[in-house]
Amino acid sequence: MFFASDNWAGAHPKIAQRLFAESGGFAAAYGTSDLDQKIEAKFSEIFERDVAVFFVATGTAANSLSLASVQKPGGISFCHPEAHVAEDECGAPDFFSGARLATVEGVLGKIDPKALTTKVARFPQDALHHGRAAAVTITQATEIGTVYSLAEIDAIATVCKANGLPLHMDGARFANALVALGVSPAEMTWKRGVDILSFGGTKNGCWCAEAIVFFNPEQAKEMHFIRKRAAQLFSKSRFIAAQFDGYFEDGLWLDLARHSNRMADRLRAGIEQASTARLAWPTASNEVFAIISKSAAKTAEDKGAKFYEWPIPESQPELVSGNETLIRLVTSFATTNDDVTGFLACLA
Amino acid sequence: MFFASDNWAGAHPKIAQRLFAESGGFAAAYGTSDLDQKIEAKFSEIFERDVAVFFVATGTAANSLSLASVQKPGGISFCHPEAHVAEDECGAPDFFSGARLATVEGVLGKIDPKALTTKVARFPQDALHHGRAAAVTITQATEIGTVYSLAEIDAIATVCKANGLPLHMDGARFANALVALGVSPAEMTWKRGVDILSFGGTKNGCWCAEAIVFFNPEQAKEMHFIRKRAAQLFSKSRFIAAQFDGYFEDGLWLDLARHSNRMADRLRAGIEQASTARLAWPTASNEVFAIISKSAAKTAEDKGAKFYEWPIPESQPELVSGNETLIRLVTSFATTNDDVTGFLACLA
Amino acid sequence: MFFASDNWAGAHPKIAQRLFAESGGFAAAYGTSDLDQKIEAKFSEIFERDVAVFFVATGTAANSLSLASVQKPGGISFCHPEAHVAEDECGAPDFFSGARLATVEGVLGKIDPKALTTKVARFPQDALHHGRAAAVTITQATEIGTVYSLAEIDAIATVCKANGLPLHMDGARFANALVALGVSPAEMTWKRGVDILSFGGTKNGCWCAEAIVFFNPEQAKEMHFIRKRAAQLFSKSRFIAAQFDGYFEDGLWLDLARHSNRMADRLRAGIEQASTARLAWPTASNEVFAIISKSAAKTAEDKGAKFYEWPIPESQPELVSGNETLIRLVTSFATTNDDVTGFLACLA
Amino acid sequence: MFFASDNWAGAHPKIAQRLFAESGGFAAAYGTSDLDQKIEAKFSEIFERDVAVFFVATGTAANSLSLASVQKPGGISFCHPEAHVAEDECGAPDFFSGARLATVEGVLGKIDPKALTTKVARFPQDALHHGRAAAVTITQATEIGTVYSLAEIDAIATVCKANGLPLHMDGARFANALVALGVSPAEMTWKRGVDILSFGGTKNGCWCAEAIVFFNPEQAKEMHFIRKRAAQLFSKSRFIAAQFDGYFEDGLWLDLARHSNRMADRLRAGIEQASTARLAWPTASNEVFAIISKSAAKTAEDKGAKFYEWPIPESQPELVSGNETLIRLVTSFATTNDDVTGFLACLA
Repeated sequence: MFFASDNWAGAHPKIAQRLFAESGGFAAAYGTSDLDQKIEAKFSEIFERDVAVFFVATGTAANSLSLASVQKPGGISFCHPEAHVAEDECGAPDFFSGARLATVEGVLGKIDPKALTTKVARFPQDALHHGRAAAVTITQATEIGTVYSLAEIDAIATVCKANGLPLHMDGARFANALVALGVSPAEMTWKRGVDILSFGGTKNGCWCAEAIVFFNPEQAKEMHFIRKRAAQLFSKSRFIAAQFDGYFEDGLWLDLARHSNRMADRLRAGIEQASTARLAWPTASNEVFAIISKSAAKTAEDKGAKFYEWPIPESQPELVSGNETLIRLVTSFATTNDDVTGFLACLA
Repeated sequence: MFFASDNWAGAHPKIAQRLFAESGGFAAAYGTSDLDQKIEAKFSEIFERDVAVFFVATGTAANSLSLASVQKPGGISFCHPEAHVAEDECGAPDFFSGARLATVEGVLGKIDPKALTTKVARFPQDALHHGRAAAVTITQATEIGTVYSLAEIDAIATVCKANGLPLHMDGARFANALVALGVSPAEMTWKRGVDILSFGGTKNGCWCAEAIVFFNPEQAKEMHFIRKRAAQLFSKSRFIAAQFDGYFEDGLWLDLARHSNRMADRLRAGIEQASTARLAWPTASNEVFAIISKSAAKTAEDKGAKFYEWPIPESQPELVSGNETLIRLVTSFATTNDDVTGFLACLA
Repeated sequence: MFFASDNWAGAHPKIAQRLFAESGGFAAAYGTSDLDQKIEAKFSEIFERDVAVFFVATGTAANSLSLASVQKPGGISFCHPEAHVAEDECGAPDFFSGARLATVEGVLGKIDPKALTTKVARFPQDALHHGRAAAVTITQATEIGTVYSLAEIDAIATVCKANGLPLHMDGARFANALVALGVSPAEMTWKRGVDILSFGGTKNGCWCAEAIVFFNPEQAKEMHFIRKRAAQLFSKSRFIAAQFDGYFEDGLWLDLARHSNRMADRLRAGIEQASTARLAWPTASNEVFAIISKSAAKTAEDKGAKFYEWPIPESQPELVSGNETLIRLVTSFATTNDDVTGFLACLA
Repeated sequence: MFFASDNWAGAHPKIAQRLFAESGGFAAAYGTSDLDQKIEAKFSEIFERDVAVFFVATGTAANSLSLASVQKPGGISFCHPEAHVAEDECGAPDFFSGARLATVEGVLGKIDPKALTTKVARFPQDALHHGRAAAVTITQATEIGTVYSLAEIDAIATVCKANGLPLHMDGARFANALVALGVSPAEMTWKRGVDILSFGGTKNGCWCAEAIVFFNPEQAKEMHFIRKRAAQLFSKSRFIAAQFDGYFEDGLWLDLARHSNRMADRLRAGIEQASTARLAWPTASNEVFAIISKSAAKTAEDKGAKFYEWPIPESQPELVSGNETLIRLVTSFATTNDDVTGFLACLA
C-alpha cells in the first residue's frame, strides 16, 4: 500500500529489461549515439512534428532549464502558487534563469486565464523597475491531480500569444494527463500553443528519464550550451535513451499511465463511498486527495499504508474539520488492485 | 577497437544486472531509502571513516558543486591547465561556484607544488581587487593518464594547508589511479589531506554513478541544498545506489579498473615497440597518448578503430613532427585483448 | 509643485558645497582615505556603537547586497508585498543573493508579525524542496509613507529571533521615519533587533549617498568582497564621504527630514479639508497618498504640478470610485510652502 | 608628489563647479531628465554617430555589464593577462556575465593579434565542452600606460570580425589614449570596429562619471534591464550628467588628458636622464613605469612621494636587478610641475 509518491516505485520490468539489454557494446557519448538519435526521431513521431529533445537528470532540471532558455534580465515567469517550480524545487528555476516567479491564482490547481491577464498586465515589457513578463508555465497534470482541458490550455495560450510570452508545460505526469483527456500528445501541446515541454518518464515507470522538448527546434539552439553548463549532459546518454525506447515501445507509456489512473479511479470511487473519508477535489489523474478521519488515517498507517499528509491550501482554510486530515494518495504503474482494496478496507 | 573514450562503453553486466534486480518494490525517494543508506555506509567502510556522500548526475556536477561548496565572493580555484574543470565543463564550475579558475602549470598533467605556492601567493586573503585563493583541485588520474604519487599529493596538500585552502580531487577515473598506485582509497585521499572527492563510477562500468564525498561530514551541511538547487537530486536515487552496490560488490570496481589499466599496459608496450608510433607521455592508468604516423592512423581508422586526435599542448609545440599526429586511446572494462591486438597490428 | 518623487530634487546647497570644497588635494582611493574613516566613525557615533559601513551607488545595491550577505542556497527573504525590493528593483535582490523573496501581508504597508510567523513556519530550515527561511526585510518609512512604531519593529524582531533570522531594514527614507517617531537612530535599529540597515541619504538631500550599515561588524567580513564583485566599490569614495560629512554636520540630515515631513503634514492637513480629495492612508513621513477627483488632478497637472498616479492595491480594490484617482505626493528638502499652497489651491 | 593613482585626485574645479551649479531645481529621475538627454546627445556628437549611453557607478561596472550584454552560456571573453577585467575587478566580469575570461599574450600590455587568432580558434562556436568565443576586450590606454595604435586596433578588430565577435574597449583612460594618438574619438573606436566602449571620466577629473557607449544602439536594448538589475541605475542621474557636462565643455576633458600626459612626459624624460632609474616600458599616456634603485625609492618616499611598487610581470622575470624595484607613477589633471620636479630631484 505505497501511495506516498509515484517516485517510490522502481522501474517497470520492460524498461529495466530494455536498459539491461543495452549494456553491451560501444556507442558515441554525450547524446550523439544512434540510439539517442532514434529516440529523438521517436519524439518527433509521437508529437507529429520535428521537435528538439534534450535529456536531463531531473524534472527540476527540465523545468529550470526550460525557463532559463526563454529568460531575460528582470524577467518574470508566471505559475500557479501550487506549481512544482514554486513549491518543490528549492529555487532552482530562479537560480538557473536568473528570473523571478510570480504566482497566479486559480481553482483546482490551474491558472485562471483572467487572473493571468491581470497579472501579466502588471509587468509590461518596459517595466524597468517592476520587472517584465517573460514566460508562463502550467503543470499538466497539476500538482493536485487535476487536468487542464484542451479548452483551458487554449485559454492560457491565448493570453500568452496576446502578450508575446512563451508557454511552458511541466509534464512530470504528462502521460497521466494525456490518457485522462484521451487526446494525442500533439493535441495537448503545440496544437494548443505550448512552446516547450518538460516531458517526464520517471514517475511513470522509468528510472530516470526526463526530456525537454522544443516544438520549434529553432528556439532550442542555446539549449545545448545551457544544458552542458548546468552539468546536465550525460556521457552515457544512451542509458536514458534506452529507457525511453522501452517506455515508448508498443505504447507501454500510455498503458502504464492508464493503469495508474485506473488505480486512482478505484481509490476515488472507494473514498466517495466511505463513511470516514471524502474527496478533497475532483482529480482526474493518478493523484487522489482525500479528507479522512484521523482515526482512519491511523488505522491505514498501522496496517502499513504509506502516504503523505498534505498542507491545507491557504485559499481553502475551511477544507478540513478538527478530527480530519488531508492526505495525498499517488498511484503508479506498480500499484496493484490489492493495494487499493487493502487501503479502502482501512476506511470501512 | 573502440578507444575513443571509456564512456563509449555501456554498463558492466554485473552492474546492469544489479540495477535490473532493483526495479521491483517500493522505496523512499530522494536518497532516503534503505539502499541509499547502505551505500553511504559502504562508502564510509571503503574510505575507513565516516564520510558524507551525495549522488549527482555527471562528473561535471560533482566537480562544480564540490567547488561551489567551498567558494567565497572573489574566490579563485586553482587547477592544472589541462584539468577537466578548465577544459571540458563549459564553464560549469564558474557558473555554480560564482568563482574563477586560475591555472597552475606542471609537467605530465600534474600541478607543480612550487608553481602552486607561487600562484597562490598572488591571491592573498585580503586581495580585494585581484581576488583571493579559495580552493585547489587536482585530477587523479590526470587528463593525460598520469597518476599523482602519494608523495605528490602530499606536496600539494602541504601547500593547501599552509594557505588554509580546501583540497578537492576530481576522481572521474579514481579507480584507475587507485589500482595503478596499489594503495587504499583512504591512503590516496584524506590521509593525504584531500577534503572533497568527486568519485566517478560511470567511466569504469556504471551507467551513471557519480558521487561527491566529503571526508569531514561537518563541511557537507550546505550540500543538500546546493545539490537540490542545482537540480541534481534524483527522485529514484536508488537507481544510482543499486549501480554502486554492484560496483562495489566483491571488489568489482577494482577488478574493472585493473582490467582497463592492463589493456592500456598492453597498448603502451605495443606502441613502444612499433616503428610507426611512440608514446607521448609515460602514462600509468587507462589512457594512452601516442604519436603516430598519419598513415598508420589512417590504416587504423580504415580498419574500424575509434580514437580522437588530441590537441598538441601549448607547452610542447615540438612534440609532433609533420607527418605525425597525436592520438588518445582510452581503454575500459569492455576493452578486449583482441581490440588491443587488432589496433597494434595497424601499427606494424 | 514637484511632488513626483524626492529623488527629483537635486542636492542640498550645504551638501553640494561640502562636496565642492572636497574637490582639491589628493586622498587614498577605494574608501581608505581619512575622510572615509572619519565618516565611518561618525556613523558609529550616530548609532552609539561600533558599526561597519559600506558606501554603495544605489538603494537597490544597498538592499540587494545586504540580503546577499545573509543568504544560503534555497533561502527565502521575507518582505511586504509593496516593499521596494519586491516592486521596484527589477529582481536585483534575487540576482545578487541567489535567493527568492516571499511576501507577507500586513495593513498600511507593514508586515504583520502574526502573518510573518505563519509564513516563516512554512519554510523550516530542513525544507529541502520548498526552501528555507533566510532573512526578513522591513522598510522604514514604508513605501506608502507609514512608519513602523518601535513596538511594531520589536514584534517583527521577536519573530526573527525566534527563528534565527537576520533582520534587515530598508532605510531609503530612514531620516523621515526617525524624525516622525522622534527617537534616536539606535532606538529605531539595533536596540530593536535590526542587524543590517540600508541607510539612504540620496532621497533626503544628497546627490548619491547610500550606505550599508552592519550593527555587528563581525558579520560584515564578507561584504568587502561582495561589494567589490558587485562593481559597487567607488574609487573616489570620498565624494560620497564628503556628502555624508555635509549631511551629518549640525544635524542637517534631521532638519531636512523634518522639513519634508512638515511639508507633507501641510499637504495632509489641506487634503483632509478639501472637498475634492481625501487621504488614502494615515501616513506619517514625507509621502502622502490622496484619493482625488479626476478633475482636480487635471487642474493640478495643468497648473504644472508633478505627481504620479498610483496603482490601486490588490488588497483594497474598492479604495477609489469611478471619477477618482489615487495619487502619490512626495515632499523633499526642496519643497516650499508655496509649492504646497499652490497644490492645495488646485483642490479648492 | 602624489603618483599613486589618478583616482587619488579629487574633481577638477570646473567639473565640481558645474555639479554644484546643478544642485538646485527639480528634474526627472533615473536618467530621463533634460540634462541626461543633452549629455547623451553630446556623446553622439563627440563620436559622430548616434550612440546609446548608459551611466554606471564604476569602471568595473562598465566593463562587466558591457561583457554581460554580449554573453552566451559557455562563452569566453578574451583579454590581455594584465587587463583590469582580469587583474583588478574581483571576478565581477565573470559574475555579471556568467562567462569566463581567457587571456591572450602580447608585448607591452597589448593583445597580439596572431595570438588572438590562435586562441580564439581553440573556442569554436560548437565547442560544447570547451566553451565558445563570445567577445574580445582591449584596454586603451593599457594597464601599463602604452597605447594601441589605430593599426593595432584594426588588427584586433579584423580578428573579431573574422570570428563574429563583438569588440569591447575598456576606456578607463580613454582621453589619455586619445590625445596620445592625436585622433578623434570616432577614429579610435567605431571606425576601427569597436562595438562597445567603457568611457571613463573619473580618472580624468570627474568624481564619478563612467558610461557604457554602444555604437550600434540596436545592440543596447537589453542594457536598460541589465543595468537596473545590476543596481547601477542612479536615481539622481543628473549628478553624473552634470559632471560630463563640465567635462566636455570647451574640450576640458582633452585639456586635462593633455596635461596629465605632459606631466608623464616630463617624468619619462627625467627618468631617462637619471642615473638611479630607467624606464621599464615606452609608455605613451599618463602612466610611467620606472625601474629605480631601492635607495632612490626610499629617498622619494621619505620626501613624501606616493607611488606603488609594481609586481614584476611573469613574462619578464629579468626586468629588475637585486637592488632595484619596479614602480608605477600615475599623473593626473591635478599633478603639478613642482610635483614632477620634486620627484625627479629624488633620483639625482
